[in-house]
Amino acid sequence: MTDLHEQCLLAKQASRSLRSLSLAERNSVLNSFADNLLQHHDFILLQNQKDLTEAVTLSDAMKDRLTLNPERIEAIAEGIRQVADLDDPLHIVLEERTLKSGIHLKKITVPMGVIGVIFESRPNVSADCTALCFKAGSACILKGGRESYRSCCAIVDQMKEALVMHHVDEHAVELAQQPSHEETQAFMEDRNSVDLLIPRGGKKLIQTVIAHAKVPVIETGAGVCHTYVDDSADLAMAAEIAVNAKCSHPSVCNAMETLLVNEKIADAFLPMICTELKKHSVIIHGDETSRTIVPGLETADENSWYTEYNDLELNLKVVSSVDEAIDHIEKYGTHHSECIVSETPEHVEKFMNGCDSACVYHNASTRFTDGFEFGLGAEIGISTQKLHARGPMGLRELTTYSYHLEGKGEIR
Amino acid sequence: MTDLHEQCLLAKQASRSLRSLSLAERNSVLNSFADNLLQHHDFILLQNQKDLTEAVTLSDAMKDRLTLNPERIEAIAEGIRQVADLDDPLHIVLEERTLKSGIHLKKITVPMGVIGVIFESRPNVSADCTALCFKAGSACILKGGRESYRSCCAIVDQMKEALVMHHVDEHAVELAQQPSHEETQAFMEDRNSVDLLIPRGGKKLIQTVIAHAKVPVIETGAGVCHTYVDDSADLAMAAEIAVNAKCSHPSVCNAMETLLVNEKIADAFLPMICTELKKHSVIIHGDETSRTIVPGLETADENSWYTEYNDLELNLKVVSSVDEAIDHIEKYGTHHSECIVSETPEHVEKFMNGCDSACVYHNASTRFTDGFEFGLGAEIGISTQKLHARGPMGLRELTTYSYHLEGKGEIR
Repeated sequence: MTDLHEQCLLAKQASRSLRSLSLAERNSVLNSFADNLLQHHDFILLQNQKDLTEAVTLSDAMKDRLTLNPERIEAIAEGIRQVADLDDPLHIVLEERTLKSGIHLKKITVPMGVIGVIFESRPNVSADCTALCFKAGSACILKGGRESYRSCCAIVDQMKEALVMHHVDEHAVELAQQPSHEETQAFMEDRNSVDLLIPRGGKKLIQTVIAHAKVPVIETGAGVCHTYVDDSADLAMAAEIAVNAKCSHPSVCNAMETLLVNEKIADAFLPMICTELKKHSVIIHGDETSRTIVPGLETADENSWYTEYNDLELNLKVVSSVDEAIDHIEKYGTHHSECIVSETPEHVEKFMNGCDSACVYHNASTRFTDGFEFGLGAEIGISTQKLHARGPMGLRELTTYSYHLEGKGEIR
Repeated sequence: MTDLHEQCLLAKQASRSLRSLSLAERNSVLNSFADNLLQHHDFILLQNQKDLTEAVTLSDAMKDRLTLNPERIEAIAEGIRQVADLDDPLHIVLEERTLKSGIHLKKITVPMGVIGVIFESRPNVSADCTALCFKAGSACILKGGRESYRSCCAIVDQMKEALVMHHVDEHAVELAQQPSHEETQAFMEDRNSVDLLIPRGGKKLIQTVIAHAKVPVIETGAGVCHTYVDDSADLAMAAEIAVNAKCSHPSVCNAMETLLVNEKIADAFLPMICTELKKHSVIIHGDETSRTIVPGLETADENSWYTEYNDLELNLKVVSSVDEAIDHIEKYGTHHSECIVSETPEHVEKFMNGCDSACVYHNASTRFTDGFEFGLGAEIGISTQKLHARGPMGLRELTTYSYHLEGKGEIR
């Protein structure tokens, strides 16, 4: 059993050799990842069954996340092939110019190095993240939940076999072997070997990683998203957008949690939208004004506005202006995705510039905040912080850049 | 006396109002910063004198850093005017496309929000950093060393006056008022109010901030830079580059600390370069081979290779190949700036792709790693980490981006 620190050093070493792999070489390896997973799906399912057998204390929802079946393995393999089909995120010239000194400067995308992924019980994360990191030229260290260890091990073994087959350093992917608390802590502090940590999971996991890491972390996932219906909104459109933003997939981070409605149209819009939302069994927590207009709503308290329900449940508030809407969003939001439904250009502009969020929509559902929808091809998460990557993170956000400078003997 | 947490909240509030300032408005404020500093330079010098009077225990070098005089204040004002002259880093459209859904996507640069700058005794940092942050639309919280408190206070007061004059929230710049250790710790953890921390100072300060911060930090400054002289190098050019990289300004982070020389040209190059370096009084720590070729060198031990001398002192090592040079750089370097002097394209390519550094040079001195030299106009530091900003950080690196999405009622 190799300890996690040793694995980090091996991954760091492997990451150096990945720098010189061509796009064709990386894609061949990715396709072999997919082939091997399909070819050995019996073994993977067997190991998954063992994980499930031991997972007696898990909730049904968690068991479902842990469960693999032939279709899910096929979906993982298909996802990896799609990553192979994406454009190369490496060696892209971001800037190029000749400096006053005569030196020719190129700013180009290069691999990040070693990316640590800390996740919970979904075994597919191990394959999805490794594929994205590998395509972007980086090694990947996976630290999953104890309950999915055998499943992840089986998946990672297949990927390592593919690496060996292509004469690539097999330590380009490493699965942490049920490390102790101290080892995990040291891993999150290991700035010499690990370049970036991405926590993939619930709020608690993400906050734990942020609290304990010294390696730079990208914060993902928390989404208290808002839709503001302006006084000039097309109310039928607003209703359609609001229902979609809440009900089409309530458990994801781009779903709306709070609906803000301008007081000038509240009397017209509130009864209509509440009727629609109730058809979808949505529990509505209203402020005082909205409860007066639509009797029988639940009461929203101070804490409600901060809440990410991730369920058929939302907050409803009447505001006096676009400014009050922005103030509310800035105070209670998570800087993920917000929408204004309006036909007044000045209000739209104020909202777009005033909301300090990764994604700001005019007349469209916040549910579109997604790597595929944005044309990134795939995503490793949705960043809610401002450094490096914001919003959906695709392959490009897994790279860094380097300045390459070509001289003729220039000195300063 | 306002406590630091309160100042953070005020700066956060101010940062929201900065988002709507036009380029012309921001530039007018910057020019007033400069005017006010010049106009009140007597008061600033008086306060600086008080700081200096109390600084009895400081070394002469530290006293020099703390000292202001009319010329230095003029230089600060001139620097601020130059920032005003730079292009706007905000509202730049980085990407634009219509998505499959029909939504029109624009990825645009927007302000970071609140930037914390932690620095030591140079009072000019307070003005330089505030100007850069303000131009980039962000509020700035300054936490300087106790020894320069009065000087910084005098400078910040002038800037606040300029803000008030232009009807801009004066809390766009806040100077921490000699906070307690606990307050400073809370500041570095305050992810709700502070978006980015930039430590400006020595290695110890930077490592302390990294060790204690929860707010994302950009690591700057540590530079163990290398020059590798290949077997095919133009030796006269190599000598000129090496002498320049070490001697032109040895105390800065882009100065060379280790010279690597290919064994095939060691007999020819080493006596020549050592003679040149000795003319500049450089202390040379050689490995065994180089000490055999040039008797009388100091001995380089394992620790030497990690050392940033920041002085007329360097390490010298003979290597067998470009691969060994890269291995050495990857093991001992700080990923700042490296140079290969060579006339062999394959070696150059290997070196450029193999060095995982912010800046990699072919046939030019590492001393060019600098915001002004790179055409960024100014820099707030040189990042040696890979997330967000790498190498010289200009105005653009002080911004983040936001996706603005324009729809016609699209739902998912």
